[in-house]
Amino acid sequence: MKVATFRFAGERHVGVVDDAGLTIAPFDLTQDEAEQGITALIGRSLPGQRSPIPLDRVTLEAPIPRPRRNIFCVGKNYFDHAHEFAKSGFDSSAANGAVPKEPIIFSKVPETVIADAMPIHIDPAVSAAIDYEAELAVIIGTGGRGISRESALDHVWGYTIVNDVTARDLQGRYSQWLIGKSQDTFCPMGPFAVTRDDLDLATTGIRCFVNGELRQDSNTGLLIFDVPTIIATISAGVTLQPGDVIATGTPAGVGIGFQPPKYLKDGDVVRVEIDGIGALQNGVHEVQA
Amino acid sequence: MKVATFRFAGERHVGVVDDAGLTIAPFDLTQDEAEQGITALIGRSLPGQRSPIPLDRVTLEAPIPRPRRNIFCVGKNYFDHAHEFAKSGFDSSAANGAVPKEPIIFSKVPETVIADAMPIHIDPAVSAAIDYEAELAVIIGTGGRGISRESALDHVWGYTIVNDVTARDLQGRYSQWLIGKSQDTFCPMGPFAVTRDDLDLATTGIRCFVNGELRQDSNTGLLIFDVPTIIATISAGVTLQPGDVIATGTPAGVGIGFQPPKYLKDGDVVRVEIDGIGALQNGVHEVQA
Repeated sequence: MKVATFRFAGERHVGVVDDAGLTIAPFDLTQDEAEQGITALIGRSLPGQRSPIPLDRVTLEAPIPRPRRNIFCVGKNYFDHAHEFAKSGFDSSAANGAVPKEPIIFSKVPETVIADAMPIHIDPAVSAAIDYEAELAVIIGTGGRGISRESALDHVWGYTIVNDVTARDLQGRYSQWLIGKSQDTFCPMGPFAVTRDDLDLATTGIRCFVNGELRQDSNTGLLIFDVPTIIATISAGVTLQPGDVIATGTPAGVGIGFQPPKYLKDGDVVRVEIDGIGALQNGVHEVQA
Repeated sequence: MKVATFRFAGERHVGVVDDAGLTIAPFDLTQDEAEQGITALIGRSLPGQRSPIPLDRVTLEAPIPRPRRNIFCVGKNYFDHAHEFAKSGFDSSAANGAVPKEPIIFSKVPETVIADAMPIHIDPAVSAAIDYEAELAVIIGTGGRGISRESALDHVWGYTIVNDVTARDLQGRYSQWLIGKSQDTFCPMGPFAVTRDDLDLATTGIRCFVNGELRQDSNTGLLIFDVPTIIATISAGVTLQPGDVIATGTPAGVGIGFQPPKYLKDGDVVRVEIDGIGALQNGVHEVQA
């Protein structure tokens, strides 16, 4: 099942996209429920659906427009990216080796989330080194603590796409990555989410294009720490909650992987594709402080 | 003004503590407002008050029982603690020098918050190196982006106490500090908060006792990066929100500062005091996985 959060006739809705990708049928939710985005579908039987609306008549929003707490993220979780980042000079964890022995987990504030087609802001007064990171994101359905690798996927509701936009200079300057990852507008998400059975983690292609140029081209089967390991690692002592979002890391081909680095600039268009989910495309817009 | 969130007759309230510290007068809030704790007082004129209740008849809760997003925290923000931590072997940022050149900002998940007198859980299956950190926490009143150092204190609503409990082994193992800082129960907070004019940041004593033994004894005037600098640093590109909590860092005397380290163990009692705010005391309780 492919779902999306969207705006139609001035109100927020959550609905199911048909197989052809032409219509979206809103779930029968109260307005308060719909405000939560697809979180409103988690932990309950699916509500009924209203008549489908042509997809080109709605405005797609992020599946979870405002996550209930910071988004969990995994760093350096593809071998080739781990090596390119360790060489970049911005990796405050490089002293521990290019490839991490344990998952590196950090967070982005919830207000970084923006919808497909909304602009990523770059503020030259704050950062001169803003980069894209195509990532598969896990949406937790059933929370829990001490979740085993074996049962971890039972706790997954589904998957979506995020662009873990990063200010490389701030990521290095502040040692811990929260600030460099949490700048306003730095988490484009969606526009679609799929339920867990619709995605094969072992074989799913993930790509990123900047201005039509293919920059990242990998497969979620190449994650160093797979989704069950990530869930088991976090939940060992941190109780996961329904609706939590976990961005699983980015493959090689980010801007700092190039010599010289290819940072995002005003007018760029970044497109992240994940097979079976869809495409997330955002323009880059320079703002004044 | 000293305020607290508390439970009385089965419901949550927010109230003002009298100068003698004997009674608390609940604000006239709806139940939904009171559920937010003192966040309900931010950005509005003070509501009326009901009749005072003897303080020993109420159950004090954390001032903000569930912050709206992860708590911002500052690492290695007192010189003497920066040196003791860099020597500990757990400091993944030590390669950048003992004393940070810029504030180190990370986060704890909101669900770590527990009230005064509630147990800090230690789970030997997850961590064998759990430590205390006495800290002054800032509560943001007026949000904003690009806040200057000069105007930063205008954005502060007030201050409270937190114990930034930390699993040192996890803090080192995962490189980024989120997991080591976010274990369930790892953020005792309160029980009191004071409005900003009631605290002189330049002269306020902060102490921590474990089982009555004085371990940390410092002054918020000794912060490496002061409160205005912290607010300016975060808000440069991350819009601060009303109700955000920022823990400002801990002075020397944490468990890993001793040879051998003095980690928390079952039955310990940790007490954090900040002059003018009060005392936060929590027992340590070993749990089974």
